[in-house]
Amino acid sequence: MPFIVIEGMDGAGKTTQARLLYEALCQELGEEHCYLTREPGGTPIGQKIRNLLLDPENEEMFPETELFLYMASRCQLVREVIQPKLAEGCTVVSDRFLLSSYVYQGIAGGVGVEQVKVLGDIATKGVYPDVIFVLDVSLEEGLSRFPKQAELWDRMERKGVEFYGRIRQGYLQAVKEYPRAVLIDANRPIEVIHQELWERIQPILAKAYGI
Amino acid sequence: MPFIVIEGMDGAGKTTQARLLYEALCQELGEEHCYLTREPGGTPIGQKIRNLLLDPENEEMFPETELFLYMASRCQLVREVIQPKLAEGCTVVSDRFLLSSYVYQGIAGGVGVEQVKVLGDIATKGVYPDVIFVLDVSLEEGLSRFPKQAELWDRMERKGVEFYGRIRQGYLQAVKEYPRAVLIDANRPIEVIHQELWERIQPILAKAYGI
Repeated sequence: MPFIVIEGMDGAGKTTQARLLYEALCQELGEEHCYLTREPGGTPIGQKIRNLLLDPENEEMFPETELFLYMASRCQLVREVIQPKLAEGCTVVSDRFLLSSYVYQGIAGGVGVEQVKVLGDIATKGVYPDVIFVLDVSLEEGLSRFPKQAELWDRMERKGVEFYGRIRQGYLQAVKEYPRAVLIDANRPIEVIHQELWERIQPILAKAYGI
Repeated sequence: MPFIVIEGMDGAGKTTQARLLYEALCQELGEEHCYLTREPGGTPIGQKIRNLLLDPENEEMFPETELFLYMASRCQLVREVIQPKLAEGCTVVSDRFLLSSYVYQGIAGGVGVEQVKVLGDIATKGVYPDVIFVLDVSLEEGLSRFPKQAELWDRMERKGVEFYGRIRQGYLQAVKEYPRAVLIDANRPIEVIHQELWERIQPILAKAYGI
């Protein structure tokens, strides 16, 4: 069954679009055939790993440590949730997946994309998305959507403007390398973006459900 | 500088022998030239990962998730502690290291040793021990050293006798494959085992410090 991933830098509107897409899918297919999840997290164990990753206290974390933790969360999510849900006939929407590690740790964090690929193969067991929507916003727009008070920023959000420039470039590079990644202009209004995603998944739904 | 690892199944006496070895090293080399650590843990971030790994609540954890979490802890430990300490001229003693993943997840957990090797290369950056002492006890002896009340057992200890049989066999197999791993009969009294370890590291100390 279809596995759809929403990607993009912090502030691009991923969580909003993932929810809108999930709600539209529920209307179309029935709630029992749809599942919404997110990374890091998505399982009780993954949620604990998420807390570790985003806690501003853990500022000494090396990018490779970060990569292993994201992979641990992903590993659990694939085996406990995504794979069983797909097997049950659900369409699964995930707010972030492997491409986030490719961009955040592999490119922007300097770990190298080859290492992310090696670890990703083990973590995902070959469960790859049918389509990855990469929401692209200008740096100004994305950063303006961060919480207004800097003390509310999580550990990833504290990394600064220069880091987010690398993230954006990383996603643009990834879209060229991955045929299933689609670049979406996310500077537009929420409803316009949602309509584009909805139209783009129609052929995938038609193929999966014959509708 | 020397990097010494103590390995073996739960109940083999690793923590005791690591401490005795560290104390003898402090006497010989001075406290400022010795460092004692352990896995999982050994850093503030690693300690949080350790809590996650040993919490009996996390019983749904897949072996691959476990492997990534151990690697995350190791990754942080190598970069934050072991490598800097060795570079400062310290002898480092660690209670567990990569061989634990090789045996617990790779062999007994069924993940496969090749995957452990791939991840281990990334996590350790090639920082490998000069010697690995594998403390071997009979299953009866090892299990008898677990806490008497089963409710005090951590998540790893709950896996049962059959699992520990595979752990022991895994260590015996690993000793054959790794020239730096030395099998130590740990059914003997604590002081006798300590003496053997102490004698075995003399050539390593002589080479490193010229003593």
